[in-house]
Amino acid sequence: MPKIDGPRLLDDLRTLRTFGAAGNGVVRKSLTDIDVEARTWLAGRMKEAGLTVSIDGIGNVIGLSPASGPALLMGSHTDTQPEGGWLDGAMGVIYGLEVARALSQDPETTDLGVDVASWMDEEGTFGICMGSRSFVGQVTEAEIAAAKDVDGRDMADALTKAGYAGRPRARLDARRNPGYLEAHIEQGGHLENTGKRIGVVTAIVGIRTFRLTLEGAQNHAGTTPMPIRKDAGMALIKLAYRIDEAFEAIKGERTVWTMGRIALHPGSHSIVPGFADMFLQFRDPDEDRMERFEVAFRALVAEANATGPVAISVEPKGEKITPTPMDETLQAHIAAAAERDAPGNWIHMPSGAGHDGMIIGDEIPVSMLFVPSIGGVSHDFAEDTSEDDIILGCQVCADAAARIVRGWKSRD
Amino acid sequence: MPKIDGPRLLDDLRTLRTFGAAGNGVVRKSLTDIDVEARTWLAGRMKEAGLTVSIDGIGNVIGLSPASGPALLMGSHTDTQPEGGWLDGAMGVIYGLEVARALSQDPETTDLGVDVASWMDEEGTFGICMGSRSFVGQVTEAEIAAAKDVDGRDMADALTKAGYAGRPRARLDARRNPGYLEAHIEQGGHLENTGKRIGVVTAIVGIRTFRLTLEGAQNHAGTTPMPIRKDAGMALIKLAYRIDEAFEAIKGERTVWTMGRIALHPGSHSIVPGFADMFLQFRDPDEDRMERFEVAFRALVAEANATGPVAISVEPKGEKITPTPMDETLQAHIAAAAERDAPGNWIHMPSGAGHDGMIIGDEIPVSMLFVPSIGGVSHDFAEDTSEDDIILGCQVCADAAARIVRGWKSRD
Repeated sequence: MPKIDGPRLLDDLRTLRTFGAAGNGVVRKSLTDIDVEARTWLAGRMKEAGLTVSIDGIGNVIGLSPASGPALLMGSHTDTQPEGGWLDGAMGVIYGLEVARALSQDPETTDLGVDVASWMDEEGTFGICMGSRSFVGQVTEAEIAAAKDVDGRDMADALTKAGYAGRPRARLDARRNPGYLEAHIEQGGHLENTGKRIGVVTAIVGIRTFRLTLEGAQNHAGTTPMPIRKDAGMALIKLAYRIDEAFEAIKGERTVWTMGRIALHPGSHSIVPGFADMFLQFRDPDEDRMERFEVAFRALVAEANATGPVAISVEPKGEKITPTPMDETLQAHIAAAAERDAPGNWIHMPSGAGHDGMIIGDEIPVSMLFVPSIGGVSHDFAEDTSEDDIILGCQVCADAAARIVRGWKSRD
Repeated sequence: MPKIDGPRLLDDLRTLRTFGAAGNGVVRKSLTDIDVEARTWLAGRMKEAGLTVSIDGIGNVIGLSPASGPALLMGSHTDTQPEGGWLDGAMGVIYGLEVARALSQDPETTDLGVDVASWMDEEGTFGICMGSRSFVGQVTEAEIAAAKDVDGRDMADALTKAGYAGRPRARLDARRNPGYLEAHIEQGGHLENTGKRIGVVTAIVGIRTFRLTLEGAQNHAGTTPMPIRKDAGMALIKLAYRIDEAFEAIKGERTVWTMGRIALHPGSHSIVPGFADMFLQFRDPDEDRMERFEVAFRALVAEANATGPVAISVEPKGEKITPTPMDETLQAHIAAAAERDAPGNWIHMPSGAGHDGMIIGDEIPVSMLFVPSIGGVSHDFAEDTSEDDIILGCQVCADAAARIVRGWKSRD
């Protein structure tokens, strides 16, 4: 099995951090000058590793292996949140680079191809996963032309300034890349809490978010008797309580649900609220269970509307995200590699957050591997992972990549 | 029994409305120019009715009856909310004036004294019931010197500008006024909903208001498993639900409770709330029941704190208001008068809102009478009461006043 070079891996990660460093974290939003500089550096490191590198018309940095036959596509993103962690995205990209190097430099694996990608804008500065969506043919020129960041910066202008505009956009070739592997920090505390060092991802969860609005009647809190009130706030409390109770009864092992916002109008201590609204979100790896959750809460809303006295309406908020199951064969290879490198120290788990792999999964089998986030922190300068875990995760990826590509080659 | 003059009553009410008229409503905040003009007009109408009138050092307009012996004190307030109804306060003052006139002009009742007052600032422009509190000796010069309205206007300056500063402040003499009667619009829909025209008030309810704050831990809504969450919002929903359930089980006939504000921080659909707060208010005519309510909700808070995972704290918001029971004898006279003038069309009921009578009740027996508010509306330009109900309420007051003062005189 190939052996990765831990110091070289950490060195590349630390060098990448210097582009936009802010303490332990990074500020490197998509297509800012510093992001473009980081892409140029990354392309250079990929070339030194012997890959054939291009930065495409939307800024994806893609390095192709010189090995013949099928290649495992590995990647993630090097753009960050406005106040980002140093490993969120960056680690998956540099893992790809290190695995490509390790395999090509080991005579036993030099014939096993690994292609490496840094997808543009996973963090949504201009849109949803613009780079990986472009790579699977889901982004039109019109979408790029219309895309702006929160400050009104045009994506098209930023691409021109970077020198990427007008270049062809790379497109996935499923014959060349029969599978995808993305490593990422966990962005949660599950590994840390269970004392495990590697997570073999089973699925990226689906997400459904709704806004519930409740219309009652605003009234004096002293002079309006309870039986004639149409208290939108009290109706919200009862509904939210029952939704929680119903979800508790049908939840899966990793279902999560959140009511992250509640607002009552007018919001005074002495006024019966006439209007209330709330957000309800739930996530699960299993689409059937997602459907059961939606059916369950809509039944409670219908029941509340039938009995009154408050009128409740439900609107989806944003797009429904369908769960992306990870490919069983790829998972099995990653699990075998994890068991070799960290025996008994790995688990299967879903990803609660979205990733580029979700997009690539629309066209080819995908897989993901997680390493622990210290304290479960992410999207914060404080995000970090121990060096040992960073190195272990990469070694597991290298072993898994060799198994996966060998599997494809032996099948041919 | 004395007969009130309906057209004269309505005429005075309509004239008073011209001071600050805004459509059907009125803008006449305490000690504004228009409020001072209204007081001057009111003092003139009292003089014409044969009362000995003074406007005291805090702006109370007080008219004393020429009749010898005990006099029933009748009053309310002529200041309004920033956007006030035309009858809220004004009606109770003009009822006093009309009852004083009706009794003095009827040879059979001319010996029965009714004193009339318009208390300064019931609506709280500068403080809590400044005028009636001054009348029972609860307002110091220091409080007046420090009082400001929301725009920073000094009460002391406003009193100087009005010409009231430096005058003596009138003080209740319980021998002269052994009882108080305040008529008011209901400010709720109970009379209208029950189809009754007169409410004989049994008590002004007590009020307790609390702010509950819940401290949990803010987290990613996708990657934080349910068992390790410290969701301040979910803890709030469960607590609020249980408080409602507990109150439902121990409520009295007229208890009301309100959770008028809920806020979650940071309030995003994708973030587990780390902080939440809410207001809880309850009102009841019975102090023992108020105490049971407080014990019940504090027990639920203690239980929630014992089980976690969120830390809940409770702070009183504002002063605790103790219920003010209305005097039984005065109630009996009002009920007898109501039964004569509106047989079967009156009820006993508590007042859910606070009134000057609550303050005067600290020193002498007090009573209140309600007439219906159309649609239960108050504190709004749209507030109104039918002319028939306005006239009926005043007639009941006149009958009740005669019965009350006769009762005192026959006792002597």
